[in-house]
Amino acid sequence: MKHEEDVKANFAKAKKKVFEAAGLGAQIISLSELFGSLYFCQTENPDFFKLAETVPGPATKELAGWAKELGIVLVASLYEKEGNQFYNTAVVFNVDGKLLGKYRKIHIPDDLEHYYGERTYFADGNLGFPVFKTRFGTIGVMICWDQWYPEGARIMASNGAQIIFYPTAIGFQVKGDAAINKAEQEAWQIIQRSHAIANNIFVAACNRVGKEKNLNFWGTSFVADPLGRFVAKGSADKEQIVIAECNLKLIDEVRHDWPFLSCRRFDVIASPKGAKQSK
Amino acid sequence: MKHEEDVKANFAKAKKKVFEAAGLGAQIISLSELFGSLYFCQTENPDFFKLAETVPGPATKELAGWAKELGIVLVASLYEKEGNQFYNTAVVFNVDGKLLGKYRKIHIPDDLEHYYGERTYFADGNLGFPVFKTRFGTIGVMICWDQWYPEGARIMASNGAQIIFYPTAIGFQVKGDAAINKAEQEAWQIIQRSHAIANNIFVAACNRVGKEKNLNFWGTSFVADPLGRFVAKGSADKEQIVIAECNLKLIDEVRHDWPFLSCRRFDVIASPKGAKQSK
Repeated sequence: MKHEEDVKANFAKAKKKVFEAAGLGAQIISLSELFGSLYFCQTENPDFFKLAETVPGPATKELAGWAKELGIVLVASLYEKEGNQFYNTAVVFNVDGKLLGKYRKIHIPDDLEHYYGERTYFADGNLGFPVFKTRFGTIGVMICWDQWYPEGARIMASNGAQIIFYPTAIGFQVKGDAAINKAEQEAWQIIQRSHAIANNIFVAACNRVGKEKNLNFWGTSFVADPLGRFVAKGSADKEQIVIAECNLKLIDEVRHDWPFLSCRRFDVIASPKGAKQSK
Repeated sequence: MKHEEDVKANFAKAKKKVFEAAGLGAQIISLSELFGSLYFCQTENPDFFKLAETVPGPATKELAGWAKELGIVLVASLYEKEGNQFYNTAVVFNVDGKLLGKYRKIHIPDDLEHYYGERTYFADGNLGFPVFKTRFGTIGVMICWDQWYPEGARIMASNGAQIIFYPTAIGFQVKGDAAINKAEQEAWQIIQRSHAIANNIFVAACNRVGKEKNLNFWGTSFVADPLGRFVAKGSADKEQIVIAECNLKLIDEVRHDWPFLSCRRFDVIASPKGAKQSK
């Protein structure tokens, strides 16, 4: 999606796209990071605190309605307010509209120099790396900057995630060097494909498109299979529904040949915190 | 390198290649996994125990001589015997021929079905993930199957590794499916490039070529920079010196924009065991 300032317009567009995707057969649908607004973290301005709302709240009520009406699993990223604290949060709804839970972004970029100044807006996520048993599979959700950390993917995979979603807002710097821009975009794909490979799971990255002030969001939302192959890959600059069939049997097939998780040496590598299946 | 049964012939060829590489300006030179022999782990045959020798021993004495004569850093993989125990070991020599230390393969594939039946031959590595301060930079060495584990790279990078070497013996199964073979080879590149990206370091993978019984070793030795870009990439089937200039300043430059290590949340992801700089 491209995003604009008007929150209602973003929600209306998101609804239209979600219904369109469901019509195409999509069972689990993810929106990009903070889909309800522009990427306001390019500057530090506490006025934007007003965009936050509680979970549950009006936004999650609306999203739950979409999931229930369509019988789909819905992954959405929201600016959450809880008491005096604010989080970059993802919510997951099951096919009956029930809120299965939420994830709060663990790694918060504090990088105003490159227009990712999120420290002002979001506290450190404090819910660990949960997974959610949905109608169509067990999924995990991390958010943007988390995608650079193999640790999170490892913990979610250890706890049973078959697909990890990464709602994202990442882009080229408008004034950036073209060669570096290209390398960074490819690195972004490589690191997420590597999580699929290292854990024998699917990974789905959902990024925004369009220019907003200093960033050209680079799109190329994709789904990678347990061998890291692209199953689907979207445009770099056009709004698009990126839809992929994920054959979950492939997880066991690839794991049969490459049982990386079971062969970990927990005596020398740390047992991931919060990973239920680790020794 | 292609390898043959005769150990002396393999050493003679390795010596020729090492001297040739040094002549081309190489400062740190790595040989592929178990370069002294065929990849004997395709079957389980205790006769091959006889290939193991102590470290230090005649082989390391010879290798140390090459390093000293050429003034290079040398990384080599050997079948090590210590008392009644056997290890898949890498040794690192400094420019003066001094043995800086050794690494013993942590993750041992026990996969005779795919011709990687190493359990018979190698005990679990018991030296953790050391790094070595050489004349030309601080390096780490892991071996083959270890390359699928982000944890090892993370620990070595935390301890200061600027380049991680992966001596390797990995190939297509001669009777394997062509599409799967291709996907596995690309996954092998992606996972190692991801270690470079996740840790802002260089990675150098050194693989054998040639057909040995059931495996066609897929070569494509490469060096990747801190953005995961190929700096050099070798042939899939020909013997070749793969040489790359690694500008170590790029580590700090990339880390300035992407400070992944310092931003880790040790309260929710495990602090890597043995990592000196972790909290």
